[in-house]
Amino acid sequence: MTEKRKERKRFKTRWKLVVAYDGTDYSGWQVQPERRTIQQTLADAIQSVTGERVLPQGSGRTDAGVHAFGQVASIGLYADIPEDNLLRALNRILPGSIRVMEARPMHPKFHARGKVLSKTYIYRIFLRRPKADMTERICPPERARYLWDCPLRLDVEAMQAAAQIVAGEHDFTSFAAFDPDRSARIAKQDENGPDNIRTIFRSEWVRANDELTYTVSGNGFLHHMVRNLVGTFVAVGEGRFSVDDVKEILAAKDRGRAGATAPPQGLALLEVIYDETPSRHGAQP
Amino acid sequence: MTEKRKERKRFKTRWKLVVAYDGTDYSGWQVQPERRTIQQTLADAIQSVTGERVLPQGSGRTDAGVHAFGQVASIGLYADIPEDNLLRALNRILPGSIRVMEARPMHPKFHARGKVLSKTYIYRIFLRRPKADMTERICPPERARYLWDCPLRLDVEAMQAAAQIVAGEHDFTSFAAFDPDRSARIAKQDENGPDNIRTIFRSEWVRANDELTYTVSGNGFLHHMVRNLVGTFVAVGEGRFSVDDVKEILAAKDRGRAGATAPPQGLALLEVIYDETPSRHGAQP
Repeated sequence: MTEKRKERKRFKTRWKLVVAYDGTDYSGWQVQPERRTIQQTLADAIQSVTGERVLPQGSGRTDAGVHAFGQVASIGLYADIPEDNLLRALNRILPGSIRVMEARPMHPKFHARGKVLSKTYIYRIFLRRPKADMTERICPPERARYLWDCPLRLDVEAMQAAAQIVAGEHDFTSFAAFDPDRSARIAKQDENGPDNIRTIFRSEWVRANDELTYTVSGNGFLHHMVRNLVGTFVAVGEGRFSVDDVKEILAAKDRGRAGATAPPQGLALLEVIYDETPSRHGAQP
Repeated sequence: MTEKRKERKRFKTRWKLVVAYDGTDYSGWQVQPERRTIQQTLADAIQSVTGERVLPQGSGRTDAGVHAFGQVASIGLYADIPEDNLLRALNRILPGSIRVMEARPMHPKFHARGKVLSKTYIYRIFLRRPKADMTERICPPERARYLWDCPLRLDVEAMQAAAQIVAGEHDFTSFAAFDPDRSARIAKQDENGPDNIRTIFRSEWVRANDELTYTVSGNGFLHHMVRNLVGTFVAVGEGRFSVDDVKEILAAKDRGRAGATAPPQGLALLEVIYDETPSRHGAQP
């Protein structure tokens, strides 16, 4: 009987959901008792639509206040439902702050924590003083939820030079979250094994008018890594660190050396790209 | 003693504040017991900065969930404070969802309910189906707070023709809020006297990609008037009303004839323009 149910489980359809959210009013991605989280809200919507109680697995957690344009979640569903219908039904139930942008049936071993080729985050800063001689600008309310409204005068060229230092394969211990328990847990769960070595493909700042955007792509990220990188680059922009200091901080493998963690609201998970060939997913649950 | 205090009051500085807000998480502009309102939040910030307990007077109320890019408020303050300092100090205290975009000392009789030359609102609709042959689009979370996410297929040309009907001077009773008490109260407070006659200078729909925006300027607006106009134009876009029906509805002076009130989140008060010559303000408190 139990065997039969297990057998049947293999014929669930695996779904890939691309999820966008405004994280401002949520306690992050991951289910927590008594908290409003993205994962819980999504699970509730899936249950309303299909009657099936499943917890969608994300490509990774996002912290409280962090946004996503393209978080990826995977679920297995018995429900036989066309993809457009699932998409529409979920969006009818979800609050406007969470949207399923795409719902796609996948091969049976697809998992959002599977083989990630690349993850991209952006971090956006509102520059109150885009130029030294300007009067201070005011961050309008319709942008405030997605930007770090930063009163500092920043040397963007120095920040850009610092950002290039972290490109390539490095041990990012200096930029990992402080909490040793959590770091260990996160590291263990990470698809790249229990070390802090990650490869960064792209790391750059672009300024457009009063907005400064950091774009970073890599094969994986440690907890708080993007916000710690941003905090460090901003310290360079302020002149508190030199560009060479960033080299030393990276080499030191010591979280105490880097800058402060930048506030969550500037951060958004932009995109997760998978190796979607089935053979690469064998090891995943 | 009382006379002396009154005398002294005349030497307060009158200030004009241009205020932007995301109205989503507020119960509208106007102070209400036990509710978070824009007026209350602003009054609290002013008290923090100056120690003076004053209630800023708005150019008009905005309802719960309605936004503003350029609401105007007036206050009188004893505080002798340079305008840049007042602006910065208020924004330091206010939540990011409310920004004072401009603070300017005015002549002693300036009042936000004074002689308004023109008020402009915009109403934004997200078109899930910008063209009939397109698959349904999804309103991304970062835009959802500012748009009516509208599943209907709309005939924009018919809506544009209907919008032009209301331009000029008309009795807008058919588009005023139902509540007779409140309507009477609003009408009495209105700078244009206790009737429902208003002049509309501009009334038009513009479509850009997946967004449809109604812009309306006039010398004054009745309670719910913009949302009732939008609800009626959308009914035209759906084909439930003809363009000629809108002429009849306007002529009928009967709220029961017009379309439903469009939801608040699409609406934003864009700009209020005053006749700022002091002589025009004599009659105002």
